Amino acid sequence: MTVNTAVDIGKVLQPVQAGLRLVEEKMRTLETSLFAPLASAFIDLIGSGGKRLRPALALMAAEVTGGLHPTADYPRVVSLAASVEMLHTATLVHDDVIDGALLRRGAPTLNAIWNRGATVLAGNYLFARAAALAAETDNTRVIQIFSNTLEIIVDGELHQLFARNNYHQDKEEYYQRIYAKTASLFCAATEAAAVLAGSPAPVVEQLKQYGYNLGMAFQIVDDILDFTGDADSLGKPAGSDLRQGTLTLPFFHFIQQHPQPDQVVARMDDAYRQAEDGDESTLHRIVAEIVAELRASSAIEAARGEAITFLDRARANLAHLPDNEYKVSMLDLCDFVVQRTY
Amino acid sequence: MTVNTAVDIGKVLQPVQAGLRLVEEKMRTLETSLFAPLASAFIDLIGSGGKRLRPALALMAAEVTGGLHPTADYPRVVSLAASVEMLHTATLVHDDVIDGALLRRGAPTLNAIWNRGATVLAGNYLFARAAALAAETDNTRVIQIFSNTLEIIVDGELHQLFARNNYHQDKEEYYQRIYAKTASLFCAATEAAAVLAGSPAPVVEQLKQYGYNLGMAFQIVDDILDFTGDADSLGKPAGSDLRQGTLTLPFFHFIQQHPQPDQVVARMDDAYRQAEDGDESTLHRIVAEIVAELRASSAIEAARGEAITFLDRARANLAHLPDNEYKVSMLDLCDFVVQRTY
Repeated sequence: MTVNTAVDIGKVLQPVQAGLRLVEEKMRTLETSLFAPLASAFIDLIGSGGKRLRPALALMAAEVTGGLHPTADYPRVVSLAASVEMLHTATLVHDDVIDGALLRRGAPTLNAIWNRGATVLAGNYLFARAAALAAETDNTRVIQIFSNTLEIIVDGELHQLFARNNYHQDKEEYYQRIYAKTASLFCAATEAAAVLAGSPAPVVEQLKQYGYNLGMAFQIVDDILDFTGDADSLGKPAGSDLRQGTLTLPFFHFIQQHPQPDQVVARMDDAYRQAEDGDESTLHRIVAEIVAELRASSAIEAARGEAITFLDRARANLAHLPDNEYKVSMLDLCDFVVQRTY
Repeated sequence: MTVNTAVDIGKVLQPVQAGLRLVEEKMRTLETSLFAPLASAFIDLIGSGGKRLRPALALMAAEVTGGLHPTADYPRVVSLAASVEMLHTATLVHDDVIDGALLRRGAPTLNAIWNRGATVLAGNYLFARAAALAAETDNTRVIQIFSNTLEIIVDGELHQLFARNNYHQDKEEYYQRIYAKTASLFCAATEAAAVLAGSPAPVVEQLKQYGYNLGMAFQIVDDILDFTGDADSLGKPAGSDLRQGTLTLPFFHFIQQHPQPDQVVARMDDAYRQAEDGDESTLHRIVAEIVAELRASSAIEAARGEAITFLDRARANLAHLPDNEYKVSMLDLCDFVVQRTY
């Protein structure tokens, strides 16, 4: 694949800009009874939400078929889109408690400011809002997609927590993990939106698959960036997944290509052991060394190749949909995802 | 009110015993994909669930009107009842993280065995299961009741966390707090069950109010028991609410009747301050003294009087319902709740 002209994400999101504004408004509508000092904290939290890729996907998937009724169906799609983003935000808040992470997207996390209990509750409040927004779609199939996705995400996080530092996991486990972590919510957004748009079953399935494939590629790219990014753009030093014992696709390729994989594992094991005993400096040094070796190897290229395969499938999922501005944006999103790795 | 003959809770629950068995089965049906070592931990967690009062209320409220269709409607009521209990269990698990409590119902909490991150996720998994069970009712009104209740509960916990050690709160705030903490889920159970049974609006409202009034009384009684119980039956020393800075109805009455309320507040404030500085022994001593003074005062009797008022209202809510074994049990439950305080 040749590198495309840089995709401007602002342009890609243009067709759903008006919808995204409604989603923002919807997300900011909290219960009026909410304890006042918390309301503003929540608004900040919800406001720090990056590109709103997940709600954009829901809006695009609902519109691309051309069957959406603007007054009857659209408000439900907006509720769905807000629900999906709210669920995403809730998991990020709890991730902070689980990881003890102090920085996310460059800003101090809630956990660093509030105490642990308040952070758990803040995440729960966002879960509750997400559930309420899903219920607003008034569509039991959509609500079932929502609650199943929540189960998949949490189950995946439990797996990840207990699979830490486990070198015996295979690539299939990695795929299952990133499906649970990222792709499940992407495809919930596109599937549920297609359901709300009244799309026929085969179209719902293709749009679901599009979300799945885009989501898988998106997470692989995120995992690549954790090795190739610099601390400034990542908001944390490179190799943070590895430092936390989370093994990702580039590392699997690195190990596979390595002449002495056992040696790499032994080095890491030793570093983790020392970190557990309170000396983190060895772990930091070893991870920095492995990040450098991995960058110099072909592991990044191999991982990117897998992302590109998922994106090719995502494009194919759109083949039979009508040509319109939404489809153009959905195709452009595929280019955008991989572009971040160059 | 004279003390009734002791109510046998086993007998009270007899009419819904078969339904409660289905609820247990439903609650134990976890996703087969769940990480195996976790599945058994969850089963233990779900299994330690006391009397199943909340699901019993749902089953009774659905049956009392006599309109339930055994094959069409009953499985949905079972899903609702399981959802309500699962939500309750989820909040207990997170409470352990929030409070840092190490004992609940006499057994070590998950938090004492697992690490904090796993406990947060375990609670989330139970929330997700609760949402999925609510979605199984296939009734959007029921799902909306469920998600609204989740918001009320979490909002209430946030209030409670931030209102700790606040002597300026009034009784209205206490009522709002115990509504959020306990009565909201009791009345969600009875309201949603009545909806599933196809009851007319006024009946739904009366059953909802019954759940509310019973729930308010139940929590007031729990708060009384925290002062009057002994460490063995409570699974924790008496006065634990006060020790955590959570002010409850008996304490409000105690302060109101006290000749020098400012002195009590000053003693508590001093004890909290010392506890914050690392010396918990003063707090333990002062709380033990206040517990003894409060028991000797008429505060318990005054608080019990308020519980009885709620129970009288709960009985009145049932006045126009047909006389059957479910109604008898719902009336007996009112006696059971207050009986625990004698």
